[in-house]
Amino acid sequence: MIKLTTFGESHGAAIGGVIEGCPAGLKIDRKFIADELVRRATGKTSSESQRRESDEVEFLSGLLDDVTLGTPIAYIVRNTDARSEDYEALKDAFRSSHADYTYQAKYGIRDWRGGGRASARTMLPYVVAGAIAKQILKQKGIEIHAEVKSIGGETEASKIEALLTRCRAEGDSVGGIVHCSIKGLPAGLGEPLDDKFQACLAKAMFTIPAVKGFEYGDGFAMASMRGSEANDQMTDDESGSVEFLTNHSGGIQGGITNGEEVFFNVAFKPIPTIGRGDRHDVCALPRAVVIVEAMAALTVIRLGG
Amino acid sequence: MIKLTTFGESHGAAIGGVIEGCPAGLKIDRKFIADELVRRATGKTSSESQRRESDEVEFLSGLLDDVTLGTPIAYIVRNTDARSEDYEALKDAFRSSHADYTYQAKYGIRDWRGGGRASARTMLPYVVAGAIAKQILKQKGIEIHAEVKSIGGETEASKIEALLTRCRAEGDSVGGIVHCSIKGLPAGLGEPLDDKFQACLAKAMFTIPAVKGFEYGDGFAMASMRGSEANDQMTDDESGSVEFLTNHSGGIQGGITNGEEVFFNVAFKPIPTIGRGDRHDVCALPRAVVIVEAMAALTVIRLGG
Amino acid sequence: MIKLTTFGESHGAAIGGVIEGCPAGLKIDRKFIADELVRRATGKTSSESQRRESDEVEFLSGLLDDVTLGTPIAYIVRNTDARSEDYEALKDAFRSSHADYTYQAKYGIRDWRGGGRASARTMLPYVVAGAIAKQILKQKGIEIHAEVKSIGGETEASKIEALLTRCRAEGDSVGGIVHCSIKGLPAGLGEPLDDKFQACLAKAMFTIPAVKGFEYGDGFAMASMRGSEANDQMTDDESGSVEFLTNHSGGIQGGITNGEEVFFNVAFKPIPTIGRGDRHDVCALPRAVVIVEAMAALTVIRLGG
Amino acid sequence: MIKLTTFGESHGAAIGGVIEGCPAGLKIDRKFIADELVRRATGKTSSESQRRESDEVEFLSGLLDDVTLGTPIAYIVRNTDARSEDYEALKDAFRSSHADYTYQAKYGIRDWRGGGRASARTMLPYVVAGAIAKQILKQKGIEIHAEVKSIGGETEASKIEALLTRCRAEGDSVGGIVHCSIKGLPAGLGEPLDDKFQACLAKAMFTIPAVKGFEYGDGFAMASMRGSEANDQMTDDESGSVEFLTNHSGGIQGGITNGEEVFFNVAFKPIPTIGRGDRHDVCALPRAVVIVEAMAALTVIRLGG
Repeated sequence: MIKLTTFGESHGAAIGGVIEGCPAGLKIDRKFIADELVRRATGKTSSESQRRESDEVEFLSGLLDDVTLGTPIAYIVRNTDARSEDYEALKDAFRSSHADYTYQAKYGIRDWRGGGRASARTMLPYVVAGAIAKQILKQKGIEIHAEVKSIGGETEASKIEALLTRCRAEGDSVGGIVHCSIKGLPAGLGEPLDDKFQACLAKAMFTIPAVKGFEYGDGFAMASMRGSEANDQMTDDESGSVEFLTNHSGGIQGGITNGEEVFFNVAFKPIPTIGRGDRHDVCALPRAVVIVEAMAALTVIRLGG
Repeated sequence: MIKLTTFGESHGAAIGGVIEGCPAGLKIDRKFIADELVRRATGKTSSESQRRESDEVEFLSGLLDDVTLGTPIAYIVRNTDARSEDYEALKDAFRSSHADYTYQAKYGIRDWRGGGRASARTMLPYVVAGAIAKQILKQKGIEIHAEVKSIGGETEASKIEALLTRCRAEGDSVGGIVHCSIKGLPAGLGEPLDDKFQACLAKAMFTIPAVKGFEYGDGFAMASMRGSEANDQMTDDESGSVEFLTNHSGGIQGGITNGEEVFFNVAFKPIPTIGRGDRHDVCALPRAVVIVEAMAALTVIRLGG
Repeated sequence: MIKLTTFGESHGAAIGGVIEGCPAGLKIDRKFIADELVRRATGKTSSESQRRESDEVEFLSGLLDDVTLGTPIAYIVRNTDARSEDYEALKDAFRSSHADYTYQAKYGIRDWRGGGRASARTMLPYVVAGAIAKQILKQKGIEIHAEVKSIGGETEASKIEALLTRCRAEGDSVGGIVHCSIKGLPAGLGEPLDDKFQACLAKAMFTIPAVKGFEYGDGFAMASMRGSEANDQMTDDESGSVEFLTNHSGGIQGGITNGEEVFFNVAFKPIPTIGRGDRHDVCALPRAVVIVEAMAALTVIRLGG
Repeated sequence: MIKLTTFGESHGAAIGGVIEGCPAGLKIDRKFIADELVRRATGKTSSESQRRESDEVEFLSGLLDDVTLGTPIAYIVRNTDARSEDYEALKDAFRSSHADYTYQAKYGIRDWRGGGRASARTMLPYVVAGAIAKQILKQKGIEIHAEVKSIGGETEASKIEALLTRCRAEGDSVGGIVHCSIKGLPAGLGEPLDDKFQACLAKAMFTIPAVKGFEYGDGFAMASMRGSEANDQMTDDESGSVEFLTNHSGGIQGGITNGEEVFFNVAFKPIPTIGRGDRHDVCALPRAVVIVEAMAALTVIRLGG
């Protein structure tokens, strides 16, 4: 049972994580981890991206010659671009729809330099652990794939491009939806009540900053359906194995996987930082894809996949 | 920190729960608990309902003259209507879109009598614990209120009635959406990453059978918004306190409550049991309302509310 | 991973437990469970004891025809001998070396009827769960055996008898030591730091009322030893398997079992209730033996045995 | 509720920890932390020791100008003296009474360089966290003090010195007992069953390498006592407050502190590495004192002290 503990503020010395419970004897794939970090940093795969490297991971424990020892795997990424003076003005101001105010209310103190623990950069340690989780899952034939389904309500590439250009010109930002699919899952993952597969998935997705909605299978559309259209029929063949004719359920029944594809949508609100010129992102969606995959991979691993 | 452990199959001897960490010295309100169980059983309040009693709770521990001792509070409800012979035919069959197959796949055995641990009746212990949680929250000025927002896509009472009548006639079922609001929350509840307020809420909601989607604040609609419309402006008044002008965020920023109303929608698929005549429900929504409230109350308590 | 939640005061309606994570498909041995409860109630095995039955267990969930379903197994034992009037005088008094005062200090309220949650009777649910754990372990060749090692410093049966007679005459009580052995454990159980095998065992033993000391292997005696006498030599035979020549370590190194016998001692203080005439026990040790075994069995199961 | 996650092998890149749940707004005392690490490294206080510095801690997160933010505090200590070539011979050998064999049995792989995760050096992150815990406890008037009670059975300074000299000459090692006292605890800490104060203390102590026994209050001696000598009488004064006349119980009744001093003994076996000449320690006890204190401090904090 993999357990991940993460730490770090966006403009502190470093961010990182500790993975406990990783099986011993796994040769970790450093190239794959680096590629996933490029996806997080650029929203593009390492082959599409001009950047070959981005955030550099240092492993501190749990490995001997890149093979896992079964003991806790700790890793850090130094925060190099820590121009905290850029944020000096924020020391005494709460930015709208950021977490500045809520952190102050909760702790009576906050790291005002660029989001601190509320920054999207805190997802980085999840991407590293997710890369290791994906490696383990791949060996078992489980594949996770996410992609941008829509941005600002648009689903067509050219319309999306035009929208993003418009937003950039206007100094505005825009939200969107990521779709994710998990194939190759065995039947039987998830627990009857307190750790239902979909409940753990949902919790993982809402850990990602800016997520406002989650649905799986046919999701919200099922609220308008009749039972007669929503039910997934199945057939017993002679050998006793079961075949599902449809998959409105999204691969889960009673909180437990049925062996079909699990698929879900995650809705992101627009980035709250707007009107700041070149340096800021217009849309988090391309960079969120690898994060959704990582959180899904960690959930599957945690539930025994 | 309240922790709830539940147990029980729909047609076993009893279902129940154990509440750990309930503060000592609370006089529990048995009438209120009974009323909440009437809502769960009938979808109506005890004043609307003709049934005065439904499931009878027996408390086994943790109370002295109905006052909490601080020790675990165990309670059970006997399953009286356990006509297991009704289900004899299901012993060797998997019902479509039920959990029969997934339980069999997971455990190699299942309680085939009426849903077993996958039955909606397993929510009953959550309703009891939720009633106690609500009592504690009410003393702190926190109120939770859920209601049916739509059934089968209809939002108007007369149209809903017509739709339900049609479904009943056709032996069909229908889904819907429950809306829930939490008022009076202090700012500062929820944790920065692994226990974000919305993530814990989402996990709790997906524990309820038939839930397929969850969104909070403006939810999925925010995926089509621009930052300039989605951001919640706030004002500092002279005393240093903060006022929010809008609440697209749904009362949470960076995983932590900001003191505004938290509100969310929960999408339910249609009940999978169809074509069975009188005895079955056409729509779970009216009975789900109190369950949504209970799960919300337990989440708020667990996060320190 | 078996998880046990217990509840109940000695003079409330019932005491009991909920076992989560018990493997599905196990036929539970009700006779064995009943025999273990006789040992707890009388300090004798069911064949030595004149009482055939003692506390009657009712299983509420998690079983179908006595076979485990993989879902939570809840069980209760009603408290029949609840003469709370006997304790009326204790309502406003703190008995010396009992938990009356500390419960009052912690909770501001307490169940004054016969010890409440601090009563040794709260061990009963552990004995039931321990009996199921033993059944599982036995199938894997793991056997747990405890026995009284000494009472009041005496180790010889006739001297112990004489001492107990004297204590009874004087209205006094006396402490003692229980020795326990676990045979058949595989090498590799326990975690490097936070869940060392011995640490989990120790925690389990100190959960038992009146326990004041725990040592494993050669224990406290090793504090006076030299390394040259304390070290356990081992030999590699040709096949690569390892043989230990001594077992001062008590079957554990670095928190992890090495495949040798694990053995340990548990020290009990005298029962604090004295001078009360016939009804009270002079010595808890004979009845503690089965509790020590149960706690050991639950620990081994929890650590993967 | 402070939670500590630790990581690191003795000869890997670094060892360290992540403290979650530390209250916000605490100015950490770096000088005190450094002094505690000198105690761990040398067995002497920083004023007795000639070494002014030892292991250097780098804090990576959770602090702003040395003030805690309420977010996870991560810290590392680099392993500088990592002469792994010294250990090359151990690659294929199991040292007697070390954890080499058990790690190999558990994981199928081990870090053979100097103990890896089983090294006493893994206690270092606990000492850092313990120093922070002590700082918090001190503000509440809770003081923890440990000292060497005996070495090799000797309790007198001159005899201990002679014994250590003899062991050094003979290339042997020796065990001993550490006594620890916790003063200023409020009544009411600890839980009735699964987290009794003494059970959590015991678990923490058995996390320390080489610990073979734990007793609190009068401990094993109580196994030979009568109830009439073991019971702690108390008086109610007029104001209703309670005074204890003796403290055989060691400040805990029914798993919950009673406001008196908590005291306990921890037995250490001799260091298993013997016959290695100058470089190795003869006795771990002097260096273990600060570790016992740290583990006690973390336990008290975790239980709400």
